[in-house]
Amino acid sequence: MGSIAATAHEARLLCRQNRLTNTAGIAPGYLQANLLVLPARYAADFHDLCLRNPVSCPLLGMTAVPGDPHTIQPTRCIQSTDFDIRTDFPRYRVYRSGTYIGSCEDLRDSWSPEHVGFLIGCSFSFEDALVAAGLSPRHHKTGSIVAMYRSKIPLLPAGIFTDAQCIVSMRPYRPEQIDRVREVTRPFLSTHGEPVAWGWEGAKQLGIFDIEKPDFGQPQLFEEGEIPVFWACGVTPQMAVEAAGNRVDGLVFAHEPGHMLLTDWTVDDLQHLKPGIVSGHRQ
Amino acid sequence: MGSIAATAHEARLLCRQNRLTNTAGIAPGYLQANLLVLPARYAADFHDLCLRNPVSCPLLGMTAVPGDPHTIQPTRCIQSTDFDIRTDFPRYRVYRSGTYIGSCEDLRDSWSPEHVGFLIGCSFSFEDALVAAGLSPRHHKTGSIVAMYRSKIPLLPAGIFTDAQCIVSMRPYRPEQIDRVREVTRPFLSTHGEPVAWGWEGAKQLGIFDIEKPDFGQPQLFEEGEIPVFWACGVTPQMAVEAAGNRVDGLVFAHEPGHMLLTDWTVDDLQHLKPGIVSGHRQ
Repeated sequence: MGSIAATAHEARLLCRQNRLTNTAGIAPGYLQANLLVLPARYAADFHDLCLRNPVSCPLLGMTAVPGDPHTIQPTRCIQSTDFDIRTDFPRYRVYRSGTYIGSCEDLRDSWSPEHVGFLIGCSFSFEDALVAAGLSPRHHKTGSIVAMYRSKIPLLPAGIFTDAQCIVSMRPYRPEQIDRVREVTRPFLSTHGEPVAWGWEGAKQLGIFDIEKPDFGQPQLFEEGEIPVFWACGVTPQMAVEAAGNRVDGLVFAHEPGHMLLTDWTVDDLQHLKPGIVSGHRQ
Repeated sequence: MGSIAATAHEARLLCRQNRLTNTAGIAPGYLQANLLVLPARYAADFHDLCLRNPVSCPLLGMTAVPGDPHTIQPTRCIQSTDFDIRTDFPRYRVYRSGTYIGSCEDLRDSWSPEHVGFLIGCSFSFEDALVAAGLSPRHHKTGSIVAMYRSKIPLLPAGIFTDAQCIVSMRPYRPEQIDRVREVTRPFLSTHGEPVAWGWEGAKQLGIFDIEKPDFGQPQLFEEGEIPVFWACGVTPQMAVEAAGNRVDGLVFAHEPGHMLLTDWTVDDLQHLKPGIVSGHRQ
């Protein structure tokens, strides 16, 4: 407990006080979460969207009661009673009718009794595993932001959430590293898991023809013989909201990219965090 | 209990005795399941494939122990102790190294101590709901086999299961019926759920340019002004096995299309049959 934010709870308190601006590398071993907050009338459709697209939108938890910012289910996700989804992310994005209208440090003034919050798995989790396996993502070494692209993979529609595509992040690796990269990230089913495509042919199949021009983040430096490896990306839910446009009435909130929530889920919990009927059904 | 096969268990016994050849309309209200049986060494990869692609491969249950054909988990799926996955489907398909080599009435001779069986949701479940809503699928009225197509939607890879696409089934409806058709099938998350695409533009986005030439099943008659509506299809897991080719060594079994298993899941169970972390996590 000596270091700053050794635990997820300590990190959340620092974020609440806006003393942390970027959560990369904070409280290692704890899963970080992306955020989407919607009016309750859209919550069922968004929940279905997550269940139908668990690789792009892996659900880690959600607020238990509309308007209550303090309680997350399952409770294992946020164990501390001292929690506030309106403040415990370092920074938030605000959308109206599917359009980004600005960012802010907390949601105290804009949160309403109608709002429901969803916590979604984040790629930071499997990146730690890649680093530990000696397969550090390039953007870690260069200090850049990971490259992200709009793919042709449709986000399977759910209710009002239609006409969206999956966003993918890209990390360069050598062809002989692909098997190991897939193995290391495979167990992280609830935080995007193994790659969705790889290689230059894979890029074409995703509809990505200019690797130098990502739609989000920064271009990544390729070393001799490296090929692109693509993972599902947590930006996708925000794109689903933008695609829904004015079918989403009222204020929607998301995390600011790079500014995630530290959850109390640990890497050890991942084995229990598998979506799906068999592992999930209550017998 | 007066009619033939009023319950799922009665229907399974008739299938075991090969007195039922097609399970369409049998034991209404009970969910029917597609089958895939693999050597245990591929079971983890296939399980991941289902969890990553729950709309195409919705997992209803699986054999609890390799080689044991009698016990399915979750036990609610098959409650009767009098169950045998090797005989209780009316008909089976056999694959070697990803290639179809023939069909048979039971797996008594070919089942091995290494085999693991997966039960996967079937579109018959939501078709009953469409009929009840006055939206009977065209192939019900014409007595044809639903049209199925290879789509461009990639099946998100898991382990040895790569390079496969989602198969979609198609039912024609009028544009003004689409909202209702989506609503009626939406709750069936564990049996493919709502459509993945609709309309002629939707067909193009799936890579389907000649609706008269399905890859499986039969072309469907379009009435004036109708458009195609596409759902994920239970043939997809078999296509994943074919795509894996000789990465899958040994015998693989599947159900013969149209020849499903009657499970003890009922439509009333569907609310508990949602994949995903929040609804599924054991708290």
